[in-house]
Amino acid sequence: MAVRVDLNISLDGFATTTDQTPENPMGDDWGRLVDAYVSTKTFRERVLHDTSGEGTTGVDDEYARAYFDEVGAEIMGAGMFGLHNFPDDPDWKGWWGDEPPFRVPVFVLTHTARPSIEMSGGTVFHFLSATPREALDRALTAADGKDVRIGGGPTVVRQFLKAGLVDRLHVAIAPIILGSGDRLWDDLRGLEADYAVTAETADSGVVHLTFGR
Amino acid sequence: MAVRVDLNISLDGFATTTDQTPENPMGDDWGRLVDAYVSTKTFRERVLHDTSGEGTTGVDDEYARAYFDEVGAEIMGAGMFGLHNFPDDPDWKGWWGDEPPFRVPVFVLTHTARPSIEMSGGTVFHFLSATPREALDRALTAADGKDVRIGGGPTVVRQFLKAGLVDRLHVAIAPIILGSGDRLWDDLRGLEADYAVTAETADSGVVHLTFGR
Repeated sequence: MAVRVDLNISLDGFATTTDQTPENPMGDDWGRLVDAYVSTKTFRERVLHDTSGEGTTGVDDEYARAYFDEVGAEIMGAGMFGLHNFPDDPDWKGWWGDEPPFRVPVFVLTHTARPSIEMSGGTVFHFLSATPREALDRALTAADGKDVRIGGGPTVVRQFLKAGLVDRLHVAIAPIILGSGDRLWDDLRGLEADYAVTAETADSGVVHLTFGR
Repeated sequence: MAVRVDLNISLDGFATTTDQTPENPMGDDWGRLVDAYVSTKTFRERVLHDTSGEGTTGVDDEYARAYFDEVGAEIMGAGMFGLHNFPDDPDWKGWWGDEPPFRVPVFVLTHTARPSIEMSGGTVFHFLSATPREALDRALTAADGKDVRIGGGPTVVRQFLKAGLVDRLHVAIAPIILGSGDRLWDDLRGLEADYAVTAETADSGVVHLTFGR
C-alpha cells in the first residue's frame, strides 16, 4: 500500500513540452519524451488495446508492467484529466478515451465541483477540491489496500513530494534536451535525503531512476 | 584526437554549487556532487598522490581512469583555474597545488594577459584571450595528436558545445538535487541530435551518460 509516482522526464528535467501549435496540438516533443514507454508491449496492449503482441520487451517493458501493477486508485491534476481544454463543457469526459487505461477510481484535483463520471473498463473519475493529504486519504480508502499513484502533472507531483507523501518516485529519463517546460526537480533540493536512490539503464537509452523508502 | 568534456552534475543538472560560506569556503554540496569520483582508486592516486592503493574500483573508477587517458592538452575558464580568487596577485598560481593533476599544457581563457606558469609534473598554464575555435586550435597543436579536454566550468563547456566543437561529452550524474547553481543543459535544446547517447550506472548510484560522435 504505497504512494507512487511514475513520470517521463527529459535529461534537463522537463516533464512537460512546449512545442504545441494549432496545426500540431500534441507537438513533436511529447512523442520523443515518451517514445520508449509507448513502444513497449505492455503500453500497446494496455493503453492502445493492441493485441498483435508487438512492442518492445526488456527493461522499459518491465517498468511499463510495474506501472499498472497493484494500483488501486489514482490522483491527477485537472490539466492531466483534460479539464483545461473544455472548461465550460459539463459533458467533456477528458481526453483519455471511452476506456481509459486506469481501470480504478481516479481523483481529479479541481476547484470546480462536478459529478463523477463512470467510464468503460472500471475507471471512475471523481472531482475533488482538497489538500494533497485529504485527497490521498480519499484515494487510499478507495484503493482498498492497493497502491495509490500520483499521476501528474509535475506541479501536482511536486506538491505531494514536498508534503512528504510519496513512498516511491520512478522517473524514466529520456536522453533528450527539451530546453523548456515544467521542471520536475524545482524546489526539491535535498529530496534524496529521505530515500534510497537506484538507477537502471534500458537499451532505448532511457535511464530509470527510483527514489524508494 | 577527440575534443572531450567530463563533468559531474546533479540530477537537476547543476555543475556548480552555491552553499559556500566564509567559514566553509568549499561548501558541503561540492563534496556530495563529486563524492563517487574522488572516492575512486584512480582519483586518489592521480590527484591526491595517495599510494595506499585504497579507493573504489568498478564503473566509477573506469571512468576516472578514462578521464586522464590520452589527454594531451586542456582548456578551462578563468574561474576553474582560480583566477577570480586573487585577480590582482600576479604570483597566484591557481588552486591546483604545486603539482596539478593535468600534466599537460592547460589553456586558461581570460581577457587579462599573463605570463605562462610552469608547474611540477608537466602542467604548464597558458593564458589566452580567444574564441573557442581559436583556443581549440592552440590546444590541438599542443596536444600533438592526443585528445583535448574542455575542463570547465559549465559556462565554458556550453560555449564549446554550442559551437559544435565537442566530440564526446561525459557527465557523471549524482543522485542528488541541489536546487541552484549553473545548469549544464541550459540553451542546449536538441543537442542529442548530433550524438549517440549511451548510459551506464555505477554501484554508487551515479549514472554515467556519454554523448559521442
